[in-house]
This record gives sequence, C-alpha cells and structure tokens, in this order.
Amino acid sequence: MIKLLDTTNPTFAQDFNTILLRAKSDIDHLIPEVLATLQDIRQRGETALTESVKKYDKWNPTCLKDLRVDRNLAEDAYKKLDSHLRKSLQTAFERIYEFHILTKPKGFIHHDKFGNLLGMQVLPVSRAGIYVPGGKAFYPSSLLMNAIPAKVAGVPEIIMTTPTPNNQISETLLASIHLCGITECYKIGGVGAIGLLAYGLQDNDGTTIFSKVDCISGPGNIFVATAKKLVFGEVNIDMIAGPSEIGIIADSSANPDFIAIDMLSQAEHDEMASSLLITNDARLAREVARKIEEKLVNLCRKQIATTSITHRGAIIVAQDLEEAASLMNQIAPEHLEIITQNPYTLLPLIKAAGAIFLGHYTPEAIGDYLAGPNHTLPTGGSARFFSPLGVQHFCTNSSLISFSKSGLENLAADCAALAQQEGLEAHKLSVLARLNNASC
Amino acid sequence: MIKLLDTTNPTFAQDFNTILLRAKSDIDHLIPEVLATLQDIRQRGETALTESVKKYDKWNPTCLKDLRVDRNLAEDAYKKLDSHLRKSLQTAFERIYEFHILTKPKGFIHHDKFGNLLGMQVLPVSRAGIYVPGGKAFYPSSLLMNAIPAKVAGVPEIIMTTPTPNNQISETLLASIHLCGITECYKIGGVGAIGLLAYGLQDNDGTTIFSKVDCISGPGNIFVATAKKLVFGEVNIDMIAGPSEIGIIADSSANPDFIAIDMLSQAEHDEMASSLLITNDARLAREVARKIEEKLVNLCRKQIATTSITHRGAIIVAQDLEEAASLMNQIAPEHLEIITQNPYTLLPLIKAAGAIFLGHYTPEAIGDYLAGPNHTLPTGGSARFFSPLGVQHFCTNSSLISFSKSGLENLAADCAALAQQEGLEAHKLSVLARLNNASC
Repeated sequence: MIKLLDTTNPTFAQDFNTILLRAKSDIDHLIPEVLATLQDIRQRGETALTESVKKYDKWNPTCLKDLRVDRNLAEDAYKKLDSHLRKSLQTAFERIYEFHILTKPKGFIHHDKFGNLLGMQVLPVSRAGIYVPGGKAFYPSSLLMNAIPAKVAGVPEIIMTTPTPNNQISETLLASIHLCGITECYKIGGVGAIGLLAYGLQDNDGTTIFSKVDCISGPGNIFVATAKKLVFGEVNIDMIAGPSEIGIIADSSANPDFIAIDMLSQAEHDEMASSLLITNDARLAREVARKIEEKLVNLCRKQIATTSITHRGAIIVAQDLEEAASLMNQIAPEHLEIITQNPYTLLPLIKAAGAIFLGHYTPEAIGDYLAGPNHTLPTGGSARFFSPLGVQHFCTNSSLISFSKSGLENLAADCAALAQQEGLEAHKLSVLARLNNASC
Repeated sequence: MIKLLDTTNPTFAQDFNTILLRAKSDIDHLIPEVLATLQDIRQRGETALTESVKKYDKWNPTCLKDLRVDRNLAEDAYKKLDSHLRKSLQTAFERIYEFHILTKPKGFIHHDKFGNLLGMQVLPVSRAGIYVPGGKAFYPSSLLMNAIPAKVAGVPEIIMTTPTPNNQISETLLASIHLCGITECYKIGGVGAIGLLAYGLQDNDGTTIFSKVDCISGPGNIFVATAKKLVFGEVNIDMIAGPSEIGIIADSSANPDFIAIDMLSQAEHDEMASSLLITNDARLAREVARKIEEKLVNLCRKQIATTSITHRGAIIVAQDLEEAASLMNQIAPEHLEIITQNPYTLLPLIKAAGAIFLGHYTPEAIGDYLAGPNHTLPTGGSARFFSPLGVQHFCTNSSLISFSKSGLENLAADCAALAQQEGLEAHKLSVLARLNNASC
C-alpha cells in the first residue's frame, strides 16, 4: 500500500525528510573499487576489457574487434523490422530530431563601442560516446535520445556501447543503430565500456586501435554512474543519473485513473524508482491510492512496481497548490506532471524539474518516446543544477576576440592597471608593447 | 632557452608527443586522500573546517561565523580604493557584464503539427558557489569572471570562498566583493571550501547553518580540482582546470616582440604554464626565441617565467599554416592567438580552443581582464569538450510538454508500440487510458 501523508500532520516534516533523503544515491563508497577497475583497464587494455565481458556478459571475445557490431547486421535488422514498429521508430526519430534542432546553440559576432570584435563560435565535438544500458531490458529509446542531439550538433563520429549478455543483441536495438547512423558500436557494458570510451585503446605496439571520445552520455547502473564521475575531466559527461522519478501535482479536476497509471508507469521501471503525488484534494488522494492497488493486480511488471510503490511511493495532501509547488521544489523531480485546472498558473512557481508535463492529456510516457524533448533527465534532486541532455552537451563554445589598434588604445590603461594590481608585469607589457609598436 | 622544433625533423613526432602528454595533469592519485578529507568534513563539519583553516592559512577561527567576511568591510574597501583602480574595475565589470548578456540562454515555446506544445524554460540556479584562489596572489579578475555570469543568469545567492593566509585579505579583492554584490563570502580555501559549498553545514543540533550550493565554479590548485571532481553530481561544477596555456599561430607578418611578451605573459603565471608558438617562418621562430631571452632578464617574475619557458615552452616551425592549425588542434589550447596576415582565413581550420585572439592587436592579457568574454577557460586539451565558463553554467533548462487530447490521439499508436517493444506495459496503458477516458 502506498504511503498517505498530510502536511498538517505533526510528523509530516520528518516523513517528508525521509522522502527527500531517499532520493540521494551516495556512490562515494564505490569510488575505490571503480577507480581500481579503471586503472586496470588503462594498464592492461584489451585484455582487461575482454575479461570484463567474459565476467559480466558470459561470452568469450578475444579482442576489441570481436566486440564490434557489424554495420550490415544493423542495416539488415532495420530492413527486416516489423513495418509498424519501424514506422513508430521513424516517427520518434523525426519528432526528437525536430525538437532538438530548435535547441541548437548558436554563435554570434558583436562589436563593442570601440569597434573591437567579440563573439562566440559553436562547434560540435569530434567524437561522442553513448552508453546504452542492456541487461534486464534493451531500450532503443535511450539510443535515439542520446544519438539524436549528437547528430543535430553535427558530431562526425558517434560511438555506442551496450552490454550484450550471452552475446545477444535485440533486433530492435540493431535496427535503431542503423536508423541513428551510429558510426561504431561495441558490445561491452559497465565500467569497461566507460574506460574504453574515456581512455581509448592501444595495441601492444602502442598503436591506437580505438581513439578516446570527447564526451560520454547515457544512463547506466550505479557502477556506470561512478565510472562516469571518475572519468569526468578526461572527457565531458552529461550528468550522473540515478533511479527514475515522477512527481505529480494535481487538483480535484484530475482523473485518478490517469494519475494512478502514470505513477505505475514510473514504478514499473525499477524497484528504486519513486512516484509521488501531491494534491490539495484529500478525496483524490484516497482515490488514487485505491486505483493504484487495483491496477497493480494485473500489471505485467507487478513485482517491480509493487516494491517501488510500497517503499518509494507517496501521496501527500497539501493545504493548497502553492504548498504543493513548494514541496515539489524541494524534491526537484526528474519528471513533473501538473494535472490541474490551470497548469500554466502553477508553472511560474516551479523552480526545478527535468521535464514538466502540463495538463490532463500529457502522460509522462509520451515524453519517454516521442514528444520530442529529451528523456535523459536529471534525477535525485539534481534538476536544481543539471539540465536535460541536449545538443549543447555535444558542442563546445570558443570565445572570439579581435581588437584594433585604436580599440586596444582605448582600454590599455585599464587593462594595465588591473594587471599591475595582480602583479603580472608581462601581462601589462603585452598590452603596452602594442601601443608604441616598439620593443618593451 | 626555449625548445625549437621543426616538423620536418625525423624526431618531431616524438617531441610533439612529449608536448601533448605534459599537458595532462593526472589527478587520480590524489582521489583517496581528497575523498577522505571530504568525508571528514561531512562527518565533523565545522570542527574539520576550522581545523583546515588553522592548518593551511595559519590563523584560529573557532566557528563558521569567524570565517565570514563582513559586508561593511567590503563596502568600505570599495569606497577607499584608489579611484583609478576602481574605475578600471568598473570598466572590466561593465564590459564582462555586457558580453555575457549576449550569451544568456533563452527558452522557447513551439507547437507541433498536431497543436501540441513543446518548449524549454531556462531558470537560474538558486545558489552559486565561487572559488577564488588566494595564496601566492589575489586575483580580483577571477572573482569578476565567476560572479558576473551568475549575476547575468539571475542567481539570487552568490557565495564566494577564498583562502586568506594569516587572515589577511586584499583590499582590492574586498572592493571587488562589493562591486560584484556577493551575497556571502567565507575565508576558507582548498578542499575545505569545496566541502563546505557542496555539502552545506549543520550545527550540533542538526540545524542548517550554511545551505549547500547548486554549482561550484572557479580555478584552484590540484587539490581543489580533485575535490571539485569528487563533488560533481552532489552539485554541478564548471570544469576541471589545470595550469594555464597559450598557443600562438603566426606568420612572417607577426611582430616577434608581441609574440615573445605574450608567451612570457603566460609563463609568468606559473612554473607549470605552457607557451607554444607554431609558425611557418623559421626566421620569426629564431627571432621570438631571442626576444624571449632578452625580455626575461628584466621581468619581475623572471624565475617563474624562466622555469615555465624552459620546461614547458616550445617553438615549432611548420611547413605551412595548415600544418600549424592541424598541430594546434591536437593541443586544443586554452588560449589561442592567431597572428597572421589573414587570421579569419585560418579560423575555420580551428577545431578546439577555449578563447581565440585574432590579429596583431589582441594580446591574450586583454581577455584576462576586460575584453568581455570569460577568462575561465578549459585547459590541458579539454577545450575539445569543455567550454568557457558562461551564463549557461548558472542556469538549468526544463523541458515543457503539453498535449491536447487530439494531439495525443495522433501519436498514441506509435507511443504504445514503442512502450510495448520495451516491455513497459504501464507506459502504454498511461497513453491508452486517456483515449477512451475509461479505467484501464
């Protein structure tokens, strides 16, 4: 049974604190182990990587080549795919692509009042690494959501890795690899995959057989998350993501059936997933709790969903929608549904959420697959500082500065004064040298 | 004496590889030590923090309050500052502010062909932490470059930390704290400062006396860099930065005096700083080497600059400017100067650099202080995947999705097919439930 809380209850603050704390997944205790594995990959290279596949995926590659997916296989899978499913994948691809085009960062050129040029240029990274989780389930949608922003950015080389237990790879995932135009795909998961992408690989002669990527994105388990944190700096990463979450703010206008199934759609992902409803309507709260029980009975993933709902689900009755918004801001959920009479009046009160779904006809699942915006979103309260995966993760900015002699003259004294103050004489001289065009 | 290399020399590939490798500052070996310090701060809080100040800054605060800088002191320092220096700081502030306004990310609203609303909203983070290095020198420019993008983003609370050896703080830095409108400033540096910002602080009763920030930016030594890496995920960070670098591409049109002093302006920062010139003109190469020797003699920071130039400086003679650009792309320098007849014709060949300075009258130092673009830039080749610090580091995006019933109907079958394929039944049901408006 899902927890029912009321903000007027004297123990509420404590109960809510428990909800807040459990969103934290502390990965620090894994650092020594994962760091050692990464160092082993750096040292032993190919041998360490193939051993890792043997251990976790239970098959026996002997070298990096064995891990590589043949592009013809992907093309064949795409051609042979059920035509309805292929059309659905194409629709998803197009909608995600079209949305991401709108978010593409743009450079600019500006001239200051002295005629000096200032600007910013935006370039794609050269080589992007995408991690697609495998194991329990294959998620072609993860591939689309990671590959498309890289494609929109103009990244020339997109490298994908995914674990393939027993060397089996799903036909739909293969077809998606073709659809997304992935440059290279390797059958390896976990810390091994992150090490391969972050450090690249040399053969015994020191010849590079796999060049390191510039950035790594995509979800993964707690070991993958830790490895991503540890290679940050060696490459860029998208974010450190934990279990999935939904927060729903609803009033009496909401349909309890919609809310119940939306909470279950989050719960069925993972025992660790959390689903939270905050409403100003006590009747709705009870009704949703009842509907959840009812719908759980026949759900395919009943066990996972039940564990999640029982341990990490909650329904809170708030005094009003403002209080609901304020509590939700403390959660900063990955997915936020606002199912109220006037969702747009509540929107300005929301300070942090990965993706916001407004109104009665916007189930979170539509965002998982084909609404258009990215489904790779910050979890565990990190929406306070991380953003959805986007084209910007696959681009870099460079500042552009070009001064004229007179433009420099206008600012030289101020620049020299500041350099002087910081005790950096050559900085000052580098400006002054250009004024008199003489040796300094 | 600075190293002189030629790309036609048979040992060049090996020499260049040495240059590439030395840009790497591997911080992994510091992880266990820094992780232990961070865990100690988490556990012992205020006691661990004051102990760290005693140890590194040699004075004796007893509690967090003692570390806090009085805002009146900052205001007084600003009023009493030499009026020329104050004017120079104001000019820098205004120019940096105006440039960063141009880079502010913008949200949008879009409607798809079915009338569904898709969009993105951009919000500032609530609380930003800024690390300003101290110790060897105080850099007020670091404060401006970190605080201004946060202000442009609209961050309501900007918290600064800086080490203050012997409890001394520079008047110019104090004045800059007032100029930037810093919310709170604490006299603590190193891993302690990063721990305070990332975890916040509770007193013995568990009451919060310092709330954790959402993001941490700013340069620091190798311990600060390691601590930032380790708290990434707990908060966002700007980047992991190492020693400063300059790369210069020049042809025979360049003035060797300008190049020599620009290389020294980088070298005077730090023994670990690197300065590299790549030119297609052997005469210019020799001339710059000679000028560097000449200018070093009288430089205030002669010792630092000599060590840097000798161990981490180099001049490379390339066959042509295209080869120069290609080598420079392998370096991906923090600062790139293009001092050639036609710098804009070379620009499209540049694949990665933090900031690009074009033409004869754009010394890198102008970008350090007041050109406008940020001087917090990716180092060690990380310009391939990191960007200059910017307003975007102090903002988050949230996706917005709002479907109509008919809009959902148009996409329901595709969404259901994809959910079905991934074995996520409740996802499918959450869409279908809304079509017939019945219990599912």
